[in-house]
Amino acid sequence: MKLPGIGPKTAARLAFHTLNMSEQDVAAFAAALLDVKRKLHECPVCCNITDRTPCSVCADTGRDGRVLCVVQDPKDVLAMERTHEYNGRYHVLHGAISPMEGVGPNDIRIRELLQRVADSEIEEVILATNPTVEGEATAMYIARLLKPFPIQVTRIARGVPVGGDLEYADEVTLAKALEGRRQV
Amino acid sequence: MKLPGIGPKTAARLAFHTLNMSEQDVAAFAAALLDVKRKLHECPVCCNITDRTPCSVCADTGRDGRVLCVVQDPKDVLAMERTHEYNGRYHVLHGAISPMEGVGPNDIRIRELLQRVADSEIEEVILATNPTVEGEATAMYIARLLKPFPIQVTRIARGVPVGGDLEYADEVTLAKALEGRRQV
Repeated sequence: MKLPGIGPKTAARLAFHTLNMSEQDVAAFAAALLDVKRKLHECPVCCNITDRTPCSVCADTGRDGRVLCVVQDPKDVLAMERTHEYNGRYHVLHGAISPMEGVGPNDIRIRELLQRVADSEIEEVILATNPTVEGEATAMYIARLLKPFPIQVTRIARGVPVGGDLEYADEVTLAKALEGRRQV
Repeated sequence: MKLPGIGPKTAARLAFHTLNMSEQDVAAFAAALLDVKRKLHECPVCCNITDRTPCSVCADTGRDGRVLCVVQDPKDVLAMERTHEYNGRYHVLHGAISPMEGVGPNDIRIRELLQRVADSEIEEVILATNPTVEGEATAMYIARLLKPFPIQVTRIARGVPVGGDLEYADEVTLAKALEGRRQV
């Protein structure tokens, strides 16, 4: 019941299921749980969650080290990887600036990002934080900090999702889609 | 039951409701129905549905006649107007090219659009067809036809909707958001 989304009934059902599992399976499950805590850590380069040092993306020499995609969450790295369109590296902030929730610039991995931009041959930083109030604020904050560096700073497009319908797009998204129009 | 989304039960309920309405209300409703058919027509300029000639948008001298937003449907005009960010004029295609459904370039108002671009002082055409396969194909088709004209042709941005989460964006949308990134 201490886990998120598990109420008393589900907890009871899981407990009874564990009772019926083989000794071997339970041991493997317990070991896997401990592994999560013991083996996974933040990559010293990109701050993504990994079981290696550095993580597989940072270690991959086939990836373009000149492009850096800044995301809020390790799950966003997975989302970007699913597109199969991005071949650069990542930087995971582990959150977004949110004064309402008491998250300031020093609570997320912005310092590490600046250090990384200063130290390496990065030519473009893509700000891919969420298109929410917090994500936008974080992107703008980072963009300002990156101004002194001789690099390109870009923001992912906000607009109408592919396969969608203009009619069902909300006003703000449609306004952004209009603002972000590009020559064809 | 001939109306869309009205099954036998709803039809019966509506019929009984009509029985209980006042004579006056029924007459007004019947008149309104006839008005839809008799008074509404396509604007001779923008092809939008209107009860005036030309429609209120085309007649409004406060709007910028140099920018033209091309949409698939009259409902899309309403969606664009809700943003309060657009002050140009519209052109309604009444559909998108779809070989699967037997809709060719001559079945939608493309000829009228070309005539309009040739005749007036339009400087930019914004292709705001839906970001679907048909909408994209229609936008690309129109873009090609507009190439000989000395105007700017733009396409609305496709990307992550505002307020959304990268994690829940589909691969194609995320790839488009990445492709459409802009310098900040």
